Amino acid sequence: MIHPSVLADEFSQRWERIRKSMLQQGADAMLVTDNVNLYYVSGRVFSGYCYLPADREPLFFVRRPVGLDGDNIVYIRKPEEIGDYLREQGLPFPQTLMLENDSITHNEFLRYEAIFKPATIKNGTAVLRSVRSIKTPYEIGQIRRSGILHAEVYAKIPSLYKKGMTDLDLSVEIERESRLLGSLGIFRIFGQSMEIFMGSVIAGDNADNPSPYDFAMGGAGLDDSLPVGCNGTMLEERMSVMVDLGGNFTGYMTDMTRTFAIGDLQELAYKAHETSIEIQRSIAEAARPGVPAKDLYNMAIEIAQEAGLGDYFMGHRQKAGFIGHGIGIEINESPVLAPRSRDILAEGMVFALEPKFVIPETGAVGIENTFAVTADGIEKLTLCEEQILPLG
Amino acid sequence: MIHPSVLADEFSQRWERIRKSMLQQGADAMLVTDNVNLYYVSGRVFSGYCYLPADREPLFFVRRPVGLDGDNIVYIRKPEEIGDYLREQGLPFPQTLMLENDSITHNEFLRYEAIFKPATIKNGTAVLRSVRSIKTPYEIGQIRRSGILHAEVYAKIPSLYKKGMTDLDLSVEIERESRLLGSLGIFRIFGQSMEIFMGSVIAGDNADNPSPYDFAMGGAGLDDSLPVGCNGTMLEERMSVMVDLGGNFTGYMTDMTRTFAIGDLQELAYKAHETSIEIQRSIAEAARPGVPAKDLYNMAIEIAQEAGLGDYFMGHRQKAGFIGHGIGIEINESPVLAPRSRDILAEGMVFALEPKFVIPETGAVGIENTFAVTADGIEKLTLCEEQILPLG
Repeated sequence: MIHPSVLADEFSQRWERIRKSMLQQGADAMLVTDNVNLYYVSGRVFSGYCYLPADREPLFFVRRPVGLDGDNIVYIRKPEEIGDYLREQGLPFPQTLMLENDSITHNEFLRYEAIFKPATIKNGTAVLRSVRSIKTPYEIGQIRRSGILHAEVYAKIPSLYKKGMTDLDLSVEIERESRLLGSLGIFRIFGQSMEIFMGSVIAGDNADNPSPYDFAMGGAGLDDSLPVGCNGTMLEERMSVMVDLGGNFTGYMTDMTRTFAIGDLQELAYKAHETSIEIQRSIAEAARPGVPAKDLYNMAIEIAQEAGLGDYFMGHRQKAGFIGHGIGIEINESPVLAPRSRDILAEGMVFALEPKFVIPETGAVGIENTFAVTADGIEKLTLCEEQILPLG
Repeated sequence: MIHPSVLADEFSQRWERIRKSMLQQGADAMLVTDNVNLYYVSGRVFSGYCYLPADREPLFFVRRPVGLDGDNIVYIRKPEEIGDYLREQGLPFPQTLMLENDSITHNEFLRYEAIFKPATIKNGTAVLRSVRSIKTPYEIGQIRRSGILHAEVYAKIPSLYKKGMTDLDLSVEIERESRLLGSLGIFRIFGQSMEIFMGSVIAGDNADNPSPYDFAMGGAGLDDSLPVGCNGTMLEERMSVMVDLGGNFTGYMTDMTRTFAIGDLQELAYKAHETSIEIQRSIAEAARPGVPAKDLYNMAIEIAQEAGLGDYFMGHRQKAGFIGHGIGIEINESPVLAPRSRDILAEGMVFALEPKFVIPETGAVGIENTFAVTADGIEKLTLCEEQILPLG
């Protein structure tokens, strides 16, 4: 088997859920090729393909690494050999094939089309993202483990600060603590347009520098080739310092943001931070299976506006169009908590909620936590002090 | 203008080279969409598109960030507005359009096809990769700057080692030094199948753990979700420690590997390391414009085999199929130094050369440096001691 044998049921369950969605759309087989999806269906990243028929066990066609062993593993050098193998084994070719049309390149699509020559190709990306949005208890366990280590790192932040640091200096020390606790570092993002290193430390008015990326916070970054996050700002009195680094301690991530202050901040900043906590409290009370994600977005906007803070909510010069996002192997899974989201909360979903404010002359304030949707509510997986803590 | 005005000539020159290649293939326009190519044509990463006609100045259609200013910048919310804009301005639609068929997803391809409805779509990826393979003096300057900082970090490695460290511990301290010197951290790779954090520190027999990724060295990694590089090996006597972290200090990377030893290594390891240096010397003498990249590969294989080290060259249980690779904005640009490469060296190319050996019971040895192809040879951009240095 390609996965650890103790996880046989776990993976059988994942395959079965994918097959069920495939059958609903009349697909005979799916070819899984991208690393994130391969990890989901096999428990490991490998170079190769998972061929999952709707009515049979999957086959794993592996290019690298050498040495994997199992009766569902076939070594190949190129994807054309998948077709050869099906022919040799007398296995049927799919009439309706699913491909990851939102992650494979156009040229890859053409190559797979030529191999399988199916009558119809449907979009497997949507199926995989939908199935992956409902985490198994094992997956939630992985996220919980990331969350515990993530919180352990954040608890050290006040002790990492030293007077005279820049935002980069502080970020580096937090990154170091993360890595020493086993952070894998890598930050997986669906889609090609978003890029980030391990996350962001944003201090003072750098929070109001708009970014090209669709993250909730901006920041000018250190270079035009990666214009997001810390920009070398010297940390000074009356600045807020927002720390939003990924918790990538397993193949599953947590997302968590905490705000720190150097000296005293203006009153508006504390008020906005309290409003962030209030938004989280209200959403935590309302969120449960069956609740539309957009209702949670609207609830957040309403609370921010009632507090007179609408101008600062989710950015100032440039605003993010969401207040939360599904998270798992990637930072941007389903559901999305946005005004036009059609996602409905369901048990097993995991999302990050990040009601944040950008206050001119102070910086960003607010919190972010990762929650799992339970049978009758949501459970916080990132447990760490939420008040603004002083640095220095 | 979207780029700094002092670089107006630089970008005009890049556009002109792309247009020339487009015209050779009969293309009327190219739509540039991926971050790496957008950075190449504009000097910044933004969310949006560059529409480059073969006979006109490019237009930059920007979604984010707000606040860019210039007469070639048009703000849009979605790519369909590019079509609207061309119609409004009475600009012609392309008959033959180039798209980045090797980086855009299949669904993106369909979307752009529907917007422009060209008679023919050709592959712009190949054009952009080919143009990008010949660096301008400005780009080589950026790479040189990365190389200087990269070497500065590596020079500190012996002082970062402490007895009792694991490979991860040492990696973390090197990562920290890199970041403090301004490393952007991000590691851009062409294609979706390769992933890595900042690079690899590989100690002892972890070097012989095969990886799914097409990097020259393997390593089991810390987790099956990212099976490459350090794996928590305790650093011990008689082990080699190979450090291969990216030099991502500008939008342009350098690649450099150095080998360290804890105590004395077996003779075979020193011999292999000397052979690595000899391969580099021979290739540096032979390499110049006009030389086929595959000849350099063959030269390396021959030297390794003549030294009786063929079994260990470029891996042991699993071997890499190349000894070097182009580098720039991405770690894997053209040319590739591989047996079936059709690339020919040309002035302005920049490549990393990494003749490495995996010696059982010792680990990986060898060096890697980044070179620019000059008018009559090659120039090393990563200048740092190349002998095996002791740790501790």
